[in-house]
Amino acid sequence: MSVSGAGLGERKIIELITGLQDRMRGNPLPFGEDVAAVRLGKGRLGVLKCDMLVGATDVPSGMSLWQASRKAVVSSVSDFAAKGVRPKVILASLGLPKGLGEDEIRQIGSGLNAAAKEYGAHIIGGDTNEAEGLTIDICVFGICREKILVRRDTARDGDVVAVTGPFGLASLGLKIVKEGLEAPQDLRVRALDAVYMPKARLVEGVTLASNRLLTSSIDSSDGLAWSLYELARASSVGFEIDRLPVDGDLERFALENGIDHVDLTLYGGEEYELVVTLSPRMFGRAMRRIPLIPIGRVTGDVGRIVLRVDGRVLDVEPKGYEHLK
Amino acid sequence: MSVSGAGLGERKIIELITGLQDRMRGNPLPFGEDVAAVRLGKGRLGVLKCDMLVGATDVPSGMSLWQASRKAVVSSVSDFAAKGVRPKVILASLGLPKGLGEDEIRQIGSGLNAAAKEYGAHIIGGDTNEAEGLTIDICVFGICREKILVRRDTARDGDVVAVTGPFGLASLGLKIVKEGLEAPQDLRVRALDAVYMPKARLVEGVTLASNRLLTSSIDSSDGLAWSLYELARASSVGFEIDRLPVDGDLERFALENGIDHVDLTLYGGEEYELVVTLSPRMFGRAMRRIPLIPIGRVTGDVGRIVLRVDGRVLDVEPKGYEHLK
Repeated sequence: MSVSGAGLGERKIIELITGLQDRMRGNPLPFGEDVAAVRLGKGRLGVLKCDMLVGATDVPSGMSLWQASRKAVVSSVSDFAAKGVRPKVILASLGLPKGLGEDEIRQIGSGLNAAAKEYGAHIIGGDTNEAEGLTIDICVFGICREKILVRRDTARDGDVVAVTGPFGLASLGLKIVKEGLEAPQDLRVRALDAVYMPKARLVEGVTLASNRLLTSSIDSSDGLAWSLYELARASSVGFEIDRLPVDGDLERFALENGIDHVDLTLYGGEEYELVVTLSPRMFGRAMRRIPLIPIGRVTGDVGRIVLRVDGRVLDVEPKGYEHLK
Repeated sequence: MSVSGAGLGERKIIELITGLQDRMRGNPLPFGEDVAAVRLGKGRLGVLKCDMLVGATDVPSGMSLWQASRKAVVSSVSDFAAKGVRPKVILASLGLPKGLGEDEIRQIGSGLNAAAKEYGAHIIGGDTNEAEGLTIDICVFGICREKILVRRDTARDGDVVAVTGPFGLASLGLKIVKEGLEAPQDLRVRALDAVYMPKARLVEGVTLASNRLLTSSIDSSDGLAWSLYELARASSVGFEIDRLPVDGDLERFALENGIDHVDLTLYGGEEYELVVTLSPRMFGRAMRRIPLIPIGRVTGDVGRIVLRVDGRVLDVEPKGYEHLK
């Protein structure tokens, strides 16, 4: 296990590793989707997702072990939400540093259970190991009808693009935690809640998908800009964004304090909103069920994402959070 | 994430965590089985297993990244083998230290693919993260008929207990790697192969289970003694062992060099044989399909494991490999 000099980023690593895997014939979803799936027969899919939380990079200071364990589950469930699939059972593989006491272990156990319960699932197994730093790998399994699963490669030119809520609060929260940024009490509480108690948009995703209202969907854990690029790449489309889904209080605070709110909204990570596309004629119907923020439209300008707000026109950059960079 | 003084062992941690989980109604398998399962309807089970390989504890020196990645898959598949279930798809969650180069990543990718192929499965997804040390969490999914899955709580007084192969080579191999023990070339090669290239007994487990020949089964990754204790506890039985399944060359070598071969055979870890029970009238039928080594019989002396070999009678101790101790 020698470690050579120049490191590869997460995305290059994923490309190398997936490129080496034999493809399963008839596999319903390609590598790179939010979840993996296997056909169960009679139009049903078994849906699987693993997501590893690593203490050193994914647990900001001030987050309790209870919250970290809950967040590990939320991250995987968020991918299920994006596809419109309910999680059913969960396995938790733990890598634990030596010396944790009973209270710490109880926090982990009850954090996992609370998160599973929050999303209607059960922890039914796992694995426990010794590791240098806290590591929680969550594997979620669920079952759905194949035709309701919302893919990321099916956005269509002319569709509306929308999100399930405003962006930027988690980024602001991380600035508060990491850089000691001061913010008004109300905004501070909401920003820290976004960091410590993220919510997966499961009800939203399942409702929109089961009513066949979406043409494509993705979660936003690597940031809004990155999610749009992933959708654009998978679907061979572009986007014209004419409304920045920024939280109102956050925008005011940013303007008053010389913080770039466009940056906070587009390029933050640790966001758990869904980014979806739907045909314009479905938009009203969707809004009657789930409040969505329309942010623009799908274009045929493949791979290009243009932002037109406040009279400015700028190209959104394909950047977002990336491990190992 | 403060770390208190006294550390808890893996088994106490598992007890605490599983004790905090809400139970799923109608869950076909209890916590503590080799795998977890969920009913798919029509008598079928979806079977799941996660197993985390941690570089610092599970990758002995001299093991390549290709071998470590392969071993991560083998460990999970071994649990499927014990239950008689074929793995179908695999997800791989990776925690990678910074600075790995393209060759190292290729080793990981092709090690995963080779192992999946070896057992008739496909890698269909995963997750990539930055971690302090190499971490590979493998999650395997498969489908089986509920009635063929072999549990660990169903051994019966009077059954034969048998194993799929001799024990001790992996322990000897670890002594060679870690302590610089010298051994004759042939034995050395086989011992190192047991360490670096472990094999899951999938054909054996699936053949025995699909022919309904077993009453119970468990894999032996924490050692033979520990597996017997787990079987005994789950099934409320005891065991009388009258034959030590020790490799012949290893026994001779141990005797000549003052090494305790009973210890090597009973209390080593990293073994991948299956420990099974079956009714005496099924034994011949099983042997015509899969070579088994009978090592004794199931007794009604709950929780007691007695070894009677070479005129000696001794109690086998409930010990085996344990993380975080």
